[in-house]
Amino acid sequence: MQESSSIGIVAPQTAHFDAPLTLKNGEVLPQFDLTYEIYGTLNADKSNAVLICHALSGNHHVAGKYTETDKNAGWWDNLIGPGKPLDTNRFFVIGVNNLGGCHGSSGPASIDPLTRQPWGSTFPVITVEDWVASQARLADYLGIQQLAAVIGGSLGGMQALQWTLSFPERVQHALVIASAPNLTAQNMAFNEVARQAIITDPEFHGGDYYAHGVVPRRGLRIARMLGHITYLSDDAMGMKFGRKLRHGPIKYSFDVEFEMESYLRYQGDKFAGEFDANTYLRMTRALDYYDPALEHGGDLSAALKPAKADFLVVSFTSDWRFSPARSREIVKALLDNNLSVSYAEVTAAHGHDAFLMPDPHYHSILRAYLKKIELRKNISAVPIIERRGAL
Amino acid sequence: MQESSSIGIVAPQTAHFDAPLTLKNGEVLPQFDLTYEIYGTLNADKSNAVLICHALSGNHHVAGKYTETDKNAGWWDNLIGPGKPLDTNRFFVIGVNNLGGCHGSSGPASIDPLTRQPWGSTFPVITVEDWVASQARLADYLGIQQLAAVIGGSLGGMQALQWTLSFPERVQHALVIASAPNLTAQNMAFNEVARQAIITDPEFHGGDYYAHGVVPRRGLRIARMLGHITYLSDDAMGMKFGRKLRHGPIKYSFDVEFEMESYLRYQGDKFAGEFDANTYLRMTRALDYYDPALEHGGDLSAALKPAKADFLVVSFTSDWRFSPARSREIVKALLDNNLSVSYAEVTAAHGHDAFLMPDPHYHSILRAYLKKIELRKNISAVPIIERRGAL
Repeated sequence: MQESSSIGIVAPQTAHFDAPLTLKNGEVLPQFDLTYEIYGTLNADKSNAVLICHALSGNHHVAGKYTETDKNAGWWDNLIGPGKPLDTNRFFVIGVNNLGGCHGSSGPASIDPLTRQPWGSTFPVITVEDWVASQARLADYLGIQQLAAVIGGSLGGMQALQWTLSFPERVQHALVIASAPNLTAQNMAFNEVARQAIITDPEFHGGDYYAHGVVPRRGLRIARMLGHITYLSDDAMGMKFGRKLRHGPIKYSFDVEFEMESYLRYQGDKFAGEFDANTYLRMTRALDYYDPALEHGGDLSAALKPAKADFLVVSFTSDWRFSPARSREIVKALLDNNLSVSYAEVTAAHGHDAFLMPDPHYHSILRAYLKKIELRKNISAVPIIERRGAL
Repeated sequence: MQESSSIGIVAPQTAHFDAPLTLKNGEVLPQFDLTYEIYGTLNADKSNAVLICHALSGNHHVAGKYTETDKNAGWWDNLIGPGKPLDTNRFFVIGVNNLGGCHGSSGPASIDPLTRQPWGSTFPVITVEDWVASQARLADYLGIQQLAAVIGGSLGGMQALQWTLSFPERVQHALVIASAPNLTAQNMAFNEVARQAIITDPEFHGGDYYAHGVVPRRGLRIARMLGHITYLSDDAMGMKFGRKLRHGPIKYSFDVEFEMESYLRYQGDKFAGEFDANTYLRMTRALDYYDPALEHGGDLSAALKPAKADFLVVSFTSDWRFSPARSREIVKALLDNNLSVSYAEVTAAHGHDAFLMPDPHYHSILRAYLKKIELRKNISAVPIIERRGAL
């Protein structure tokens, strides 16, 4: 193994965009902000940029820490850094908080410049296509004409795929991980239950809860607890918790009795204290709506015709929410278009969450693919002195 | 196929039990009611009685209708009636609403005779073992020493299994369908989310909502919507709804957009208007707690040692909540005890709900097994004139 280390201390930045953005639903955002982070160095010919697209609850803080004592690194820190599979000695990495998010980019909790009030319920329902369009604006802003790669897992994988359709000339490689060409009915059903928990929370106030000084914490907590069940496989939950009692002996009550209950409540409470419910609604709706084949009578191969990128598609055996079969649909449709596709079905016990885990086999696949990009594009390491400086 | 017909008009009855019942959690119910229905005729030697145990939201109304214009028959009407797989010309069938239920048997919404107020939060947390003990009281009341069979699906299957452990001499055959020897962590996790949705509903009032003239409808609705996802397989939801739009074209909103959303909301609303939330909490907790192997260091074979019954175990290929693997655990443990076991793994697309469906293969298995009981016990048909009278 080569030596790897953390990217170190990072800081978010915010870019403001004044040109209106017409959304898929027909609405126009007159202006918007995108909060992002960058790691590594953009090379002279600007050929080493890699965009990371986040999933449901992610954001721009992909790697590194904000302070020396920061307990939590970015959400994909195990993948990204000097010497890591996505090597910041070679690549210039961009993390961005999606439009509609709640971590700095314009979203429902932001102030609508027209009303000088939080957008709340009036913030548009954003789609994957809208995110990609806004991310292209960020690439423009950073002076990047073509991305060496776009990488994403789950909902992020949908964005990576959509990049190759919306901007075929602007993305050379797409890494579509633990994703799907659309959600199954079951998957949409879980989203619907999560949304209904939020929307029927008395403190939701039709999405305009900011004005009432409350948040629909109960609903968001339920939504997150449900989400966590679906991110893990049955086996993974069995291995992690099984039927272990929290306190033992059995108390015959509705309080926490099993370890798993304690875990779910903790995750739900934590998330409900941090995340914006209106953003959660929009993220799940973007998942529901994404379906590039829809306008092609359900023919995914026809839908992917514009793509020119080289693809790596990765799935995980125990992922029941974005199963390998769904990834294989993407692979088949790409191959139907004579595109270059690598596909890996990784044996992993963790379920959907596996895409975030540092599984050695999984990471070696990403490392090899990214190395291929590096060689193909003749990306050289940043000068050694600068690299040491970053450590 | 032989001719079959509905059992016709039926009526519930309620039995009152004055002798105290000591529950598994140590509490004592000083008295209780059980509401039940009976179909067919108990033969002279009382050897043809079959008990049906219900699952989460079921009750005593297993077959037949209450009025000629009744739109809904009992929940297992496709299985039970003259000439049906469980032939009421041969068997005397008992349906019972479980203790803690909300359809006539003593439960949280009943009046506590001590306080003359609804039990609410003070109604005990009931277990599968308690249900079986109370059902044995009902058998006593009906003058039945030994049941020809106990039949149940899902949580009902757990009761059928427990009958063979609590009262090995009193049950000759157990039909354990779409069940498990305990819940997996994932299964318990779904229950926990459902319960938390109810308990955190502001109108739950700690379980004493009756006094406030409200019900935690929002929470119960979410619980039921979630339940419905898990009763169907991903494929079944795909076949039934897929990504079909309800109104089309896409409206980009959080209103009903897909058919599946309309279905889930309808099911949730309907259930929340009919069922008692406190009962739902107790039913899910009984599921969580059931684990006969617990007192045997996890050794299911040791736990099933008391059983003497002859077993039919049935599972369904697409049932991901009570998977065939869980049924096979039961089968193995029964075989370890040299018991007579028939096992059928039915290919079915419907998921957990398959146990309620009139799948011909499934029903032929039940019919054949019940015919075997009939022959073994030399159960003769009730006189033809009486049978005609029942039609």
